[in-house]
Amino acid sequence: MRQSQLLVPTLREAPAEADAAGHRLLLRSGMIRQLAAGIYSYLPLGRRVLLNVERIVREEMDRAGCQEVLLPVMQPAELWEESGRYTQYGPELMRLKDRHTREFALGPTHEEVVTALARDEVNSYRKLPFTLYQIGTKFRDERRPRFGLLRGREFIMKDAYSFAADWDELDRTYQAMNTAYCRILERCGLNYLRVEADAGTIGGQGETHEFMALADVGEDTIVTCNHCGYAANLEKAAFQSSSSVEYIQAEGAGMGAEVSRIATPDVRTIAELSSFLNKKAEQMIKTLLYLADGQLVAALVRGDHELNEIALKQVLGAEELVLADDEALASQAQLTVGYLGPVGLGVRMIVDVDVAAMPQAITGANEAGMHLSGVRPGIDFALDQVERIRFAEAGDHCALCGEPLVFTKGIEVGHIFKLGTKYSDAMGASFLDRNGRQCAPVMGCYGIGVSRLVAAIAEQHATETGIRWPASVAPYDVHLIPVSWKDEQQQKLVLELEQQLLDRGLRVLVDDRDERPGVKFKDAELIGLPVHIVVGRGAGEAQVELGSHKLAASGETSRIQLTAQEAITYVIEQVQQR
Amino acid sequence: MRQSQLLVPTLREAPAEADAAGHRLLLRSGMIRQLAAGIYSYLPLGRRVLLNVERIVREEMDRAGCQEVLLPVMQPAELWEESGRYTQYGPELMRLKDRHTREFALGPTHEEVVTALARDEVNSYRKLPFTLYQIGTKFRDERRPRFGLLRGREFIMKDAYSFAADWDELDRTYQAMNTAYCRILERCGLNYLRVEADAGTIGGQGETHEFMALADVGEDTIVTCNHCGYAANLEKAAFQSSSSVEYIQAEGAGMGAEVSRIATPDVRTIAELSSFLNKKAEQMIKTLLYLADGQLVAALVRGDHELNEIALKQVLGAEELVLADDEALASQAQLTVGYLGPVGLGVRMIVDVDVAAMPQAITGANEAGMHLSGVRPGIDFALDQVERIRFAEAGDHCALCGEPLVFTKGIEVGHIFKLGTKYSDAMGASFLDRNGRQCAPVMGCYGIGVSRLVAAIAEQHATETGIRWPASVAPYDVHLIPVSWKDEQQQKLVLELEQQLLDRGLRVLVDDRDERPGVKFKDAELIGLPVHIVVGRGAGEAQVELGSHKLAASGETSRIQLTAQEAITYVIEQVQQR
Repeated sequence: MRQSQLLVPTLREAPAEADAAGHRLLLRSGMIRQLAAGIYSYLPLGRRVLLNVERIVREEMDRAGCQEVLLPVMQPAELWEESGRYTQYGPELMRLKDRHTREFALGPTHEEVVTALARDEVNSYRKLPFTLYQIGTKFRDERRPRFGLLRGREFIMKDAYSFAADWDELDRTYQAMNTAYCRILERCGLNYLRVEADAGTIGGQGETHEFMALADVGEDTIVTCNHCGYAANLEKAAFQSSSSVEYIQAEGAGMGAEVSRIATPDVRTIAELSSFLNKKAEQMIKTLLYLADGQLVAALVRGDHELNEIALKQVLGAEELVLADDEALASQAQLTVGYLGPVGLGVRMIVDVDVAAMPQAITGANEAGMHLSGVRPGIDFALDQVERIRFAEAGDHCALCGEPLVFTKGIEVGHIFKLGTKYSDAMGASFLDRNGRQCAPVMGCYGIGVSRLVAAIAEQHATETGIRWPASVAPYDVHLIPVSWKDEQQQKLVLELEQQLLDRGLRVLVDDRDERPGVKFKDAELIGLPVHIVVGRGAGEAQVELGSHKLAASGETSRIQLTAQEAITYVIEQVQQR
Repeated sequence: MRQSQLLVPTLREAPAEADAAGHRLLLRSGMIRQLAAGIYSYLPLGRRVLLNVERIVREEMDRAGCQEVLLPVMQPAELWEESGRYTQYGPELMRLKDRHTREFALGPTHEEVVTALARDEVNSYRKLPFTLYQIGTKFRDERRPRFGLLRGREFIMKDAYSFAADWDELDRTYQAMNTAYCRILERCGLNYLRVEADAGTIGGQGETHEFMALADVGEDTIVTCNHCGYAANLEKAAFQSSSSVEYIQAEGAGMGAEVSRIATPDVRTIAELSSFLNKKAEQMIKTLLYLADGQLVAALVRGDHELNEIALKQVLGAEELVLADDEALASQAQLTVGYLGPVGLGVRMIVDVDVAAMPQAITGANEAGMHLSGVRPGIDFALDQVERIRFAEAGDHCALCGEPLVFTKGIEVGHIFKLGTKYSDAMGASFLDRNGRQCAPVMGCYGIGVSRLVAAIAEQHATETGIRWPASVAPYDVHLIPVSWKDEQQQKLVLELEQQLLDRGLRVLVDDRDERPGVKFKDAELIGLPVHIVVGRGAGEAQVELGSHKLAASGETSRIQLTAQEAITYVIEQVQQR
């Protein structure tokens, strides 16, 4: 391909909108452009990367025995009402009405459509198990789209849905998908972790795992144990709290004190209280009020801890959990934000394990401007229900082996779920088993963010000057750069090299532009093909200079001198790894 | 692929919704299913056909030097307002609001997005010409979706957009796209015609051509001349009217008669009038009132002719043309539907050439229950403007060579347009030419209906019992059908054949189901792979029976007896044509 004919609008500076290294470079290298918040156009180079990732995903899905389908973007609202998700999904579900004012959802995921399909078409165990997948455009109206392709409102996903006669069959498919996902991420050149996860709005009755590409811009925190290999996302991570033990020892002396009232005018937050009383946050109890499916409930965590809403929701078995606002509080016995506390609260309380272990604590007094000190959990207020409802944090230990936990940031690129019969039950899909009994198919679902993979690869392979695309997904295999395209000898050698590389099935980009060498080199670094060959003064003697990701990564030299033939051999070796 | 693992829900009867032969068979062969009116799911076999068509389109676009991109489905309404199409497109444009109540259109086409891209990124003649294309999902809220994939509301299209420095450059690209389109349609095994066309809502300043797949269910009428090769769609077709000449000769005797009033109570339509007066429709004038951009205008055609609204719109240079409703008429001097006529009408009249040639005619009297006879065009009413505003019909002659025109039905599968600077002017895209002058890029756009191609192929290759898919797009190359999969010898031979075919890179479907032979054969005919090999009692002696589209088309025999090796040779020969 001649670069002069390719739309590659490289930029010296990244637009202000860019908020991550990979995103900045995707913009600067002319691969993508923003059309609206969270909505991007893929220009030719970006489209090629995306197609390469799609190809890898398709190959691995086919290898795993899945069947490709294509399900509609526009989904009748009635289907979503059958599953109960039309309201549950909230404002993230894009909705529209057709000319007959019939309501539709723009699919963020396709459980409803695929379950309805199975309900209509699959009625016997003899047609099970099977797995359908598709690669297509999805929509989710994110409140805060950001990091370019990482969190978009219109994006490309591979989603797959499996149907099995029983849980054993589901387990086998789940395992096969797990293997396929690992292969996909490895082939994409990603450094990733597979972690235990929460099922979110997809729901389901079985385990679920996320695949996390490690990256500082990642919006997920991953909790791992280097000793036993345990890995989970922060919401799901089990842990042993060690700090509470230390606390009990350190503060044990205070036991037996009476509850006393302290005037704390205009002091509302833990931080304010801490500074006002000159006490540590871990000596305080934070009391949070929630509406769980409309019912008021209190959650108690230590002042220095962060409540895990996902864990709380699970403990409560609630469909919907929202922080109670002032209005909800005012309606309930003059509860006062900023001064809530467990003593005399009169609301059901879920108490974090670490709170239950506190010998005494400072809490709100349920009275404006007042706090209590010397409050003893289990004595001054009842421990209605003690649960683990806070996030793990630095210093906590592995629940399995007791070793210290490690915290890293990750991008969720894949997520696999054992749904069980959640959707088949809700939508009435069934089949006759071997014994003629009516059963609900046991489902799994499996998503991988195809455009998000592109973003994650860009993020992990970003350097100061460009993205070093892995050979497997690079838009072209090799970049041929004549120092001067107008120089006859250089042009001749470039064209010879191009033909030889094309004959070997390689994908070649030739910089035939009338630009200064510096401009060409800068653009080549931005575009980041695995190998580039510079043809300059040595062209007459078939001498070239070659640079590559491998050389750059070695840090020793950026380019080596070679004959044209040696360069071709080098390229072939590099690209065979793709 | 084992058929037992593939979701292919074949049907003995087509659902009532099915309204075309190809559509019925796509449903019956388990390739597609309807989710909502005009919205379809592609099941595994249908998806494979679609992917094959996509591959052919992609290869030919790449061969023509186009660059693949992927532009968003969700397009900000502001862009469509810039081009003026946000209102012009009407209810066919799907619209939605995001959570911030910002308006978006779901792209039925991407002129606005791509022109905005060029405006932002292309500023010099040195970056021209180039052509971008994409293959993706499009949305159009059809008033009457029908014929399955032929006229859907969500469909797959390849759209391409070219940018050139001048009209000569556009001409070259247009020609290259024309060639690519011919290659695509030929590779898809379609019998098609390229015809002159009207630009519709896409608009533009240059010529435009449609590619029509010939089929009886086609919603377009194609007008061709077998003598000189002229071809156009009905809206665009130029012609010589011969009937008017004959009419003038036959009716010449009536010249000079006076206008007289005839009472015609409750007689409103041409048909009613014809039967009431026992006169032919060609002796009458039909007067139609339109609102052209809000202005009332009358169109006059002969009673037996059909008005061509596209031609009328062009003659008037109107943006919008709608038939005047009763309300619009009532507001204008008591005009009475059913009794309109040109005498004393008081509205600007566009008169069809054939009306102007009438010596005398019967017309409405602009008075309820009354008509006039003996009305002489040009004498009893002024010929404000004489134009060709009716459709060609049987008996008309070629405008170029005078030979009789032929009328056939076609499915519009492709459409190419010389847009000129319509969009670049409206949206302010410009570049600096060689002389540093600011110029608007000259654009072209090129669409091909990818899912519609699948439907057109199905339509042209439909038989009583199945679709005979061309080898180029068939979901698999060959169907291996053991009479009994449980028979060890049969299974062994089938597996040997499968392996040998796979080794040669062929795509093989094995019917390993526990079904009666009759069921398997019926399903195989429905699925319609190019070759099927039946392995039955002769398996022990490596004898098989082979059927193919070629044999079926010959009409001589449906299957031939061969050795397994001969069968493989036969398959390879057939499939090499793909």
